[in-house]
Amino acid sequence: MKQGVIERFRAFLPVTDQTPVVTLLEGSTPLLNAPRLSKELGLPETAVWLKFEGMNPTGSFKDRGMTVAVSKAVEEGAKAVVCASTGNTAASASAYAARAGLRCVVLLPDGQVAAGKLAQSLIHGAEVLAVAGNFDRALELAQQAAKELGLALVNSVNPYRLEGQKTAAFEVVEALGRPPDYQFMPVGNAGNITAYWTGYREVATRQGLGLPKMMGWQAWGAAPLVLGKPVARPSTVATAIRIGTPATWLGAMRAKDESGGTIARVKDAEILSAYRRLARLEGVFCEPSSAAGIAGLVRASREGLFSQADRTELRIVCVLTGHGLKDPETPKTLPHKWKRVPADFPALKRALKTR
Amino acid sequence: MKQGVIERFRAFLPVTDQTPVVTLLEGSTPLLNAPRLSKELGLPETAVWLKFEGMNPTGSFKDRGMTVAVSKAVEEGAKAVVCASTGNTAASASAYAARAGLRCVVLLPDGQVAAGKLAQSLIHGAEVLAVAGNFDRALELAQQAAKELGLALVNSVNPYRLEGQKTAAFEVVEALGRPPDYQFMPVGNAGNITAYWTGYREVATRQGLGLPKMMGWQAWGAAPLVLGKPVARPSTVATAIRIGTPATWLGAMRAKDESGGTIARVKDAEILSAYRRLARLEGVFCEPSSAAGIAGLVRASREGLFSQADRTELRIVCVLTGHGLKDPETPKTLPHKWKRVPADFPALKRALKTR
Repeated sequence: MKQGVIERFRAFLPVTDQTPVVTLLEGSTPLLNAPRLSKELGLPETAVWLKFEGMNPTGSFKDRGMTVAVSKAVEEGAKAVVCASTGNTAASASAYAARAGLRCVVLLPDGQVAAGKLAQSLIHGAEVLAVAGNFDRALELAQQAAKELGLALVNSVNPYRLEGQKTAAFEVVEALGRPPDYQFMPVGNAGNITAYWTGYREVATRQGLGLPKMMGWQAWGAAPLVLGKPVARPSTVATAIRIGTPATWLGAMRAKDESGGTIARVKDAEILSAYRRLARLEGVFCEPSSAAGIAGLVRASREGLFSQADRTELRIVCVLTGHGLKDPETPKTLPHKWKRVPADFPALKRALKTR
Repeated sequence: MKQGVIERFRAFLPVTDQTPVVTLLEGSTPLLNAPRLSKELGLPETAVWLKFEGMNPTGSFKDRGMTVAVSKAVEEGAKAVVCASTGNTAASASAYAARAGLRCVVLLPDGQVAAGKLAQSLIHGAEVLAVAGNFDRALELAQQAAKELGLALVNSVNPYRLEGQKTAAFEVVEALGRPPDYQFMPVGNAGNITAYWTGYREVATRQGLGLPKMMGWQAWGAAPLVLGKPVARPSTVATAIRIGTPATWLGAMRAKDESGGTIARVKDAEILSAYRRLARLEGVFCEPSSAAGIAGLVRASREGLFSQADRTELRIVCVLTGHGLKDPETPKTLPHKWKRVPADFPALKRALKTR
């Protein structure tokens, strides 16, 4: 029976018997083989695996951390939570706060949040403030609101969030029977790559295992970690990683350096191409930002990263951070097959023939 | 490790060692307690449980049946599949067909499909035909296309679909340790209530257990099973159950009669109220049609259905058939809290105070 992140990994999380568990039975997401993508990259079918975090209750990896952050907020007596968000954190905070009966205030960069994510905050009854500024500015305001108004901040600067998120690494190791050789993932606010690296290190210490190379991918127009300095006006189609000043900058750099990995950037066209390709080849629909990791894999593979690898043993994990349903607008902006037909069979037959 | 419906329930499904398994690791969805909803209904916290089928890979229960139907289609040599759909079947068929490398044709009632579902069919590369007619007409055309053009029909008239879907009942019994006393669920095309009833009967026979009363709920303007005759122009906000001629009519009536349950109808206002209430009380966001079962529970509870029950032992399961992200438009049509604010703290503070 599905248990949720806290019950499943209690021994490795900052909770006690006194912590009230606020859960939507998040976690235990599938690690799905990607045989057709592997083959397209010239690799054996067993090479590439997708950690599909879109199958969490609110449709993103944020739920792993939010169950811990909101449970601890309740334990500590909070009556209200606050966060800034490009959408997924807000959706998750709104849902877990509703479940706990807490007030929830979310600060979103006005006009820059995908439709599904906004719908989530609205329906869960959060107080949604559309801030005339970008995510980075919204985060500053959320921090100030937490400090001056006594709200519990549940952004990833809250350490409980990353503690919860590290459990995804535990699940990957469990599913593969060992850590992967490489992990490809998108990097925006940089909390998630930091959390995975913590998780992999913990499991390596406990079980005497090796560590993956952490391969983080930013969007071309929102790549502060690649450029080595904040980006004042981050820009990318991948709204979830449209962030110019990552809150967990140092954590991400440590993950890269300690693992011998990389943090690089991919163009929007590469992201959208990877997004569509994954949906068509593997039947998996992730949100555009999630595809940044896949785009990075395609790029790295073309550049020969795996040419020296023991290919039969090679295991590459790509983290798909959010479900494609979060952003229902993007698919229709890409080439697709849609046609209006009269409700009769001859017309239908003609429509199918003329494709 | 997550296995998918076929591997997990192989012994109870019409597959052999020769069947190629096309899976997205569907199933194993959570059965989530609804303590606050239970209390609002005057029941103990342990009474109401939510089977959240929105946590399947494409966001609806359809995936359980589609893995079986598409696997069998591949086994039987099909090169293409076809279905009519109010959206969820099409999304699922598109994803599983993509994964199997099959062509996929979907027939949707033009203008009557929620945005998320349409996005799914587009991104997975299906040939989407928007038919100038309702679902019932689209299903007739899909059946004709299957017959005359040699496409494999993957609507729920395909018996493999319902075989896969019955596995949800197995999971409910596993999670509760016994069958529930009542199961509340939406009824549209009527395949799902039929599949659950099959599943519960099979598990009752195998394990010598009892059976739940099956409580099916149609939308007021699309209630052929309640009226006892097809509805020519079905109408409801719950697009997934906007169906006038259910394909599995007799199966649904059998489930109701044999279990001593009911099939009744709820108004759109009750559906939307239940939808919003569930999101606010329990942090669970389902699509509007899924809330028809919750609306039915609220109604039945008010009418005294549980007044004679042994309340501490009472177990009620509500099936939430699809994720709220499937339909991102509906939340903003309901009362919500959204406000635009300048990017400065005094303005933010004022906005929070004036609520």
